[in-house]
Order: sequence, then structure tokens, then C-alpha cells
Amino acid sequence: MNNQTLILIQCADAVGLVSNIAHVIAKHQLNIVTMREFVDEVNQKFFLRVVCSGVPQEMDELTQELQQALPTGAAVTINPAQQKKLVVLVTKEHHCLADILVRYYFQTLNATVEAVIGNYDTLQDFTEKFAIPYHYISHEGKTKEQFEAELAAQVSAYSPDYIVLAKFMRILSPTFVAQFEGKLINIHHSFLPAFIGANPYRQAHTRGVKIIGATAHFVTNDLDEGPIIVQRTKSINHSQDVPQLVTAGKEIEKAVLSHAIHLLTEDRVMLQGNKTIVFE
Amino acid sequence: MNNQTLILIQCADAVGLVSNIAHVIAKHQLNIVTMREFVDEVNQKFFLRVVCSGVPQEMDELTQELQQALPTGAAVTINPAQQKKLVVLVTKEHHCLADILVRYYFQTLNATVEAVIGNYDTLQDFTEKFAIPYHYISHEGKTKEQFEAELAAQVSAYSPDYIVLAKFMRILSPTFVAQFEGKLINIHHSFLPAFIGANPYRQAHTRGVKIIGATAHFVTNDLDEGPIIVQRTKSINHSQDVPQLVTAGKEIEKAVLSHAIHLLTEDRVMLQGNKTIVFE
Amino acid sequence: MNNQTLILIQCADAVGLVSNIAHVIAKHQLNIVTMREFVDEVNQKFFLRVVCSGVPQEMDELTQELQQALPTGAAVTINPAQQKKLVVLVTKEHHCLADILVRYYFQTLNATVEAVIGNYDTLQDFTEKFAIPYHYISHEGKTKEQFEAELAAQVSAYSPDYIVLAKFMRILSPTFVAQFEGKLINIHHSFLPAFIGANPYRQAHTRGVKIIGATAHFVTNDLDEGPIIVQRTKSINHSQDVPQLVTAGKEIEKAVLSHAIHLLTEDRVMLQGNKTIVFE
Amino acid sequence: MNNQTLILIQCADAVGLVSNIAHVIAKHQLNIVTMREFVDEVNQKFFLRVVCSGVPQEMDELTQELQQALPTGAAVTINPAQQKKLVVLVTKEHHCLADILVRYYFQTLNATVEAVIGNYDTLQDFTEKFAIPYHYISHEGKTKEQFEAELAAQVSAYSPDYIVLAKFMRILSPTFVAQFEGKLINIHHSFLPAFIGANPYRQAHTRGVKIIGATAHFVTNDLDEGPIIVQRTKSINHSQDVPQLVTAGKEIEKAVLSHAIHLLTEDRVMLQGNKTIVFE
Repeated sequence: MNNQTLILIQCADAVGLVSNIAHVIAKHQLNIVTMREFVDEVNQKFFLRVVCSGVPQEMDELTQELQQALPTGAAVTINPAQQKKLVVLVTKEHHCLADILVRYYFQTLNATVEAVIGNYDTLQDFTEKFAIPYHYISHEGKTKEQFEAELAAQVSAYSPDYIVLAKFMRILSPTFVAQFEGKLINIHHSFLPAFIGANPYRQAHTRGVKIIGATAHFVTNDLDEGPIIVQRTKSINHSQDVPQLVTAGKEIEKAVLSHAIHLLTEDRVMLQGNKTIVFE
Repeated sequence: MNNQTLILIQCADAVGLVSNIAHVIAKHQLNIVTMREFVDEVNQKFFLRVVCSGVPQEMDELTQELQQALPTGAAVTINPAQQKKLVVLVTKEHHCLADILVRYYFQTLNATVEAVIGNYDTLQDFTEKFAIPYHYISHEGKTKEQFEAELAAQVSAYSPDYIVLAKFMRILSPTFVAQFEGKLINIHHSFLPAFIGANPYRQAHTRGVKIIGATAHFVTNDLDEGPIIVQRTKSINHSQDVPQLVTAGKEIEKAVLSHAIHLLTEDRVMLQGNKTIVFE
Repeated sequence: MNNQTLILIQCADAVGLVSNIAHVIAKHQLNIVTMREFVDEVNQKFFLRVVCSGVPQEMDELTQELQQALPTGAAVTINPAQQKKLVVLVTKEHHCLADILVRYYFQTLNATVEAVIGNYDTLQDFTEKFAIPYHYISHEGKTKEQFEAELAAQVSAYSPDYIVLAKFMRILSPTFVAQFEGKLINIHHSFLPAFIGANPYRQAHTRGVKIIGATAHFVTNDLDEGPIIVQRTKSINHSQDVPQLVTAGKEIEKAVLSHAIHLLTEDRVMLQGNKTIVFE
Repeated sequence: MNNQTLILIQCADAVGLVSNIAHVIAKHQLNIVTMREFVDEVNQKFFLRVVCSGVPQEMDELTQELQQALPTGAAVTINPAQQKKLVVLVTKEHHCLADILVRYYFQTLNATVEAVIGNYDTLQDFTEKFAIPYHYISHEGKTKEQFEAELAAQVSAYSPDYIVLAKFMRILSPTFVAQFEGKLINIHHSFLPAFIGANPYRQAHTRGVKIIGATAHFVTNDLDEGPIIVQRTKSINHSQDVPQLVTAGKEIEKAVLSHAIHLLTEDRVMLQGNKTIVFE
């Protein structure tokens, strides 16, 4: 993204928005490389992601002129942080974490992993191989409030852009969620809204479905009900028992979570109510 | 399947079953071409589908000897009807019906379409192009009992092996379902168990999922809860409105239903409780 | 697309194109609903597809002003024919043809099937069920020149927008192809460039691949080398013989060809050299 | 696989093979859990993979009796090594190696990684994090013979079951290949037979295909022509340039190679001429 300008706009829909925006962009000598827009006609909302070649000489004026060209209350973001800061929360399962750390180590993550926090120490050795701080914060012998207070303090210490729940198996309270609104990303091991809650692979086996899947979503206070970012499924058959479904599912889980992180780090995801707009 | 023998077995699991069965088969000069078996370890059930080259000289003896070689209560089927008889129930949507009729017309269905029954006459002209009887049985102005009694009578007149609900949009009563137990196949327009009930595409749009899907299943008295035969999904994005989801979904629906019919006509589906064993 | 305006632009790339275009569009009181653009940086070419709500009062002025706002030689198309006219060429296989005719009959094709032309009469009865003219032009006992002259005359009589080779198994000469440049669409039964030429499923079986596929492409004078519009694949395994691959492949072929037709009828495909830009 | 017996058989086809085999198995008090067989009718070959519960008391007798029950020349393998030994060859790209090492570290590989050998030292640090020997054997300043002699010596020192070319970018000579016949597994970054040779993603971009893919295959002396084990593809579009195809392709490459290793370590792959039988 060197020598490029990324502009994100979210506002009420109106006639002539693209023209107004393109006019301001051209005035600042930027050339539109790709423009993706979406109009939510039900809610009368306009969403735009523009990549321009060139860098504006006068950033403040560009911002001001865009604001003036748009309806009141428009959210305009120009060149958001290109390297997002992540904190990863884990329990015992390694597959999503390992996928993230390997990408970080080889500089294909487009983000920094500031720290990993686990409620077990299972993944500490692995994490530390990559010279990343691992904080072991056990939930045992603590109230939920105590545990979450410790967790929140440790997370906050890193001021992350996103907190990735990479198979973190504790349900977070509304208080915790509220504190990190819009920043919590979870991987759920089913094709939501099917099999909400615990043991989705067991639920899937009991129901006799012919597909399994995974869902990356923002965390809100409705369990497994937050805005969905990425979902994928995989065909299964009657011969696969629950452990085999779990094993097969892990491949989808890590692919789905990695793809969601990729989309977030490139600022391709916007929120509208309980849904996402994803400019792939 | 000319000059071949198909043997289906479903029984309690026990040691040496394959050996016992293979011995009887060899004794009758049949050569095993493909053998697929499954052991449901939880329920201690054994399922087998064997295709042999050759035709037994003494069919009764083969059946008897297989029964003797198996635990009491074993279900043994040899050479079930190769051309299943289907009756198709429709409402107004054509896509699944057309797919079935085209396959029937060009003799790639491996089944006969005995008749089509619709609670509207929308699809009558199309059906009759293929010289297939179309029975228009309106539900209007009738009690559910009356409507279903007419429907059941018409269906029964054809003694079908399977009754295919090809987007038949009336919920059938337990009485009706009981009358055709194990023969009713439905296509549901979602990846069950997500979005049970009406308007699954609208539900999917409201929830903001990133996949849609379809499910072919046996009909039982629990709405949309019967044993699943085939499921597939397809990726979607935020820009697709409900009508676009419906259009995209129809492609999956017809593919899923056709595949389920294909599996049934080749006797590749066995039932165990609320689940299917599918020997693809 | 009622009360909407579709604008297609293809021209040399330059700074400010989107702004210029959006300015003209806004001036004519049209509101941009979706805008998709692509810059081919290697060839310095700009491609745009814009859907606007509203209909321009002065179409000629809109066209002129767009031309003036763009580099010399720009191709500007406003509201191309919404109902494309198709002529379908077939040999003996029905699956692609049937898929097209069913969509046409139920008005989901977004195009008209003007006629079907076959070098056998195998599919005549089926076609005529849908009240579509079928022209049986045998290639037997004729030189290639004679056969193609007859074919060309019959095709030309319908002035089609596209000529769909729906499993038409004769190789067309450069003379024929030149006559209908950019209008000939073929479905090839492999994932090109693998298995060019005859019997791709046999080639696939011999090579022992684990996928089969199909390719819809424009026909040029290089056999199976024209610009690709749509491709899909499907997993297979060692147990499938050539007839089974053919059967499995037909499902992909018809889906791929239908999707390509859908893209073309909505003017979502642009050509750049031997490649396509597809605004899905 | 504790307390289980795996039997692999490859022989000329004959009448009654399954019965003969099942009889011997039952005689040794083993119970068949899953049996997968395939008859290559063209080459008259029979392939079988049986998993039994139980462990034979007299292994030698079981082997002998199976041999006697089968045509001359039958290959019978009982309980092949459950932990295959792998040596991994790399150049500079990390994605396949990292995927393998992570699985090994967390004991989900079902194999041991004995060593990694690279013709660059790029991946040495990463490998050594996992306490796995890394041998840096540069090809520079050496003849192909010298380089391969060093490589072969180092590989042989570990007596591996399989040598995994995890994006090893040197073409191996017939001499080297002959030395490790049937043990060399390569990941090729295209959906073979498309785009054989160098730079398949560039070739794919130039051709304008709408899918990319990867192929895991045994290495023979015909470049990229060895028996295929696993293939997968992924849809792409016109907007993706070569580096983006490379990035997208890496995800498929590592998934395909991992799946091939999984199949090999579970003895699910058999060879027949230039093709594989894969009992998934």
C-alpha cells in the first residue's frame, strides 16, 4: 500500500455521492485504482472503500472536503493503520493460534501479534518460540469478574485493534464485551446459526448433518449471534465419528479465522447493525 | 446392473459377519465387485451394500442362507426394484420438477415419474409436455383432512416407491406422513438445522450469513427434522438481496434433490434412527 | 432493470476517469447504484460497468459527454439490449440444451432462444415441445464448406447476439468463426488448458487426475484457446470409470454454461485480448 | 490403531477373493471394521484395505494363509509402520514446511519429521525452533551430480519412508529419482496436467483461467507426470495479479500436500501404473 491512499466512507445514502467523492479525490490528484461501494437500500446507508494511487499533499483538506461532500454524520477514514495490532486469546487448542503465529513470523499476516493470553499454559512454549509474550491467566479459583478484570487489564495493556478469540473457550460477560466493542473476533466451530453453543460437532453428529462448518464473527452480547464475517462448510458422511469431525473441522476453523483476520487487516469489513459488508 | 446382483443387509453387529456373508456369496458363484459396509458402534448395527457380478441360480436359497448366516432380525434385500416409481408433489416453483422431468425424459433418472400432483395448476402445462399425468388438487376451500385425503388417495393410486416433495409448500399432517413412512422425500431450502420453517432465505438475509444451502431429507412428523440425505452450501455476500438469494438457492435445491433421488434409486441410502447411511 | 441505466465503458487508462464519468452521470440526474471497475495495468486499459437508478432525459447528450470525458477511442455502451437473442447449436447430447430451454420457458434466462440448430435430429422433438424452431442441418455427405455455409446462413437468419455451442461436436473453421467473432460461446468438457481436444474425460481417466471440470469460453480460431468466461471443477476418485466421469461432468458442464450465459445476458463480461473481465 | 490390524492386499483379480480373504481373517478371530476394495477391470487388478479389530496371535500364519488364499504374486502387507519417517526438502518458501512442522510438533501428523534439507538456509531458523535437524546443502558451485549425491547421502542417512518435496525448486535427475522410487512426494502449484513446468501461476494469469489449483503427486522421471494423489482448485477472477495468485495458491498447496501426507501415513494410497488408488 506504499504510495497509495485508502479511503473508507460510511454514511446515509444520497444522490450523487460517488460523483461528489470522486470529484474531491480527483481534485487532490489521486487516481482511483479500485472502488467498491454498497448501498443498503433497506437502511438507506452507503458504504465505500476506495484505493487510490498517490498520496494527498494536504490530508486535512482532503478529509474536510470529503466531509463537506457527504451527508452529516458521515464516517470518513483515510489511511487507517496498515499494521493492525492483535492480541490472541486461547485455551488449549493450537491450530488457529499456530496458523496466526506462522503467518506473523513469516510476515504474511499484515498485522502484529502483540501477545497471546491463555487461560491454560498449554500453548505457552509454542508461543514463546516466536518471541511473543504469553500471559497465562487462569480462570480457576476466581470469580468471572476477577478473571475478566485480569484479562481486560492484560489485553488493554497492548491497545490492540482486534482481540482474536482463537478457540478461547470461556464465555465472556457483557461487561467484558462492552469494553472491547467492535474489536472482539471469534471463531465458532459450526456453520451458524446451526449448533449454537457447546459441542457443535457432537450436535452435528447427533443430528446427522452432511456438512460441517465454521464461522468467524464479531462478538456481541448475544452468544454466537454477532455479525458474521466469514463462513465455510465441508461435506462429511455417516462414517465420521465426533473426533473425526473435530479433526476435519479444525482445518476449516483455521482457514476461516485466517481469512477473517486478512479481511480485517486490509480494512475490508464494515458493520451495519448485526451484519457485515465485506469488500473482498 | 444387468447380470449383476445387489445385496443390502442391515442387522445387529457381530463378529465374522463379512466372512459369513462373503462365504455365502462365493458359494453361489457370485463375484464381489464392490462391497461397502458401515458399523454403527454406538447402536451396534451393521450395514452392508454389495454389488456382485453374476446372477444367483437359486435366489430363495441365497436369501435363506444369508439369513442363517446373520443375527436374528437381519433385513436382507436382494435386487430391489431397479426402476423406482416416483410421484412428485409440487406447488408453483418449477426448478426441481423440471430437473426431474428432463432426466426422466432422457432416461437418466433411473426411475419412472408416475405422476405429478400440484396444489396449483401452474406446472400442469409443463408436466404434460412430457406425457406425464398431472393431478391438480387444490387445498383451497377444504379442511386439511379433506385435502390430504384426496392427496393420499391420488398418491396411493400409483403405489410409488418414493413421493418427492419438489418444493411442495404445504405442511403435511402426522396422519399423512404416517401413511407413507420412509417414502416421503423433501427438499428444504436451507442448510438444516439452520433456518427451520418458512422463508429461510429471508431468515438468512436477516441474520447476515455468508452461506446459503439446501437439504434433502426424509419427512417425519418433526418439521424439517427428518433424516438428512444430502446437503450442500454456496457462498454469498452482503450485496445479495432476498430475491437474489432465492435465485441462487434454486440452483442448489435442484442439484441436492436430484442427487438424493439418484442415491435412493440406486439403493445407496439406509436409515438408522434419525440418520442416514449413504454409500456413495 | 426497469428505471435503471446500465453504462459500459472500455478505454485507455488515465487519471481521473472515475471522477469524470461520475460527474457526467450526476449531471444527468442518475444515481450510481453499483460501480465496478478494473484497470489492466499491463495493458493500460480501463473497464467500467455502472448501474444507475434513473433514466437519462437526453441519451445522445449523455453519450457525447461521456465520450468527451474519456480518452479517444473509448467504447461507451449505454443500455445494451436487455433481452439477448440466442441461437443454440447442438449435436446429440441434451443436458446443456435442456437446461437452457427450461430456463427460457420459465422466463429465468434473461434472453430469448431464437432457434436450435442440430447436425443430428436427436434433439428435435424435445426442442419443439417448447415451440422453438429446430433446424436439422446434417454435416453428412457435405464438405465442411458446404455444411458451414448452410449453418451460417441459418444462424444469420436470426441475427443472434450470441451463438451457444451447447455440446456441438463439430470443429468450426476460421472462416465460420470470423463471421461471428465475439459471439460464439462454447462449453468444453475439461478444466482448460488441461485435456484440449477430443475425449477429455478419457484423457482425464488415463492421466489419473483427481478432479474433472468444464470451461465456458469464447470461440476463436485456436481450438479450445479462446477467452475463458467460467470454469468449475469437481473432485473424483479412482473408482469412477469414463462413463461415470462423463455423467458427473455433465452436471458441471450445464452449470458452467448456464452461468456464462447469465453473465453475458447481464453484460458482465468484457474482453481484453485473450482474457475476460467478469464483473460478477 | 491400537488393538487393530491393518491388512493391505494388491494382486491379480480373481473370483472369490473377498470371500477367501474374509475367511482367513475370521479364522484368526479378527473382526472386519472397514473394508475397502477396488477392482481395476482394465488391468484385472484387485486392491484391498481392511481394518480389523483385534490382533492376530500368529502373524506368520495369517500372512501365509492370506498368500495361499490369493493368486500368485499377491502383495500382502500387515500392519505397516504406523509412524512413517519423513524427510522434507525445501528451498525458500515456508508455507508447506510450516504446516508440516506444526502438525508434527502438536502430534497430529501421524509421522515423524526426521530432518529438513534445504538448498538455501532460509528456513533453518524456523526448522530448528522445532528441534528438527536442518541440513543446508547448497546447489551452488556444484554439478547436478555432486549436489544430488550430497542430497541423496543426507536423505539416506535417515532411511525415510517418504521424502516430501515441500516446494523444493530443483528438478531431480532420473538417477536421484530411481534411488528413491515410490518415496518421493511433490507438491506442484497447478492443477496438473495444466501448466506443467515453471511459473504455473504466471502461465495461469497469461491464459486467463478462472481457477487455480495444486497437485500432490509421486515423482517419476517424467516431470510433473507422476501418479497424482490429491488435487484441489479454487476460483479466481480477472482482478488478481500474479503475486495474488501465488498468495492464494499457497493456501491450496499446503492443504493439498498435508492431505496427501495424511493419506500416505494411513496407508490409504496404492499405486497401479501411473495412477493411484486412494481409499479415503
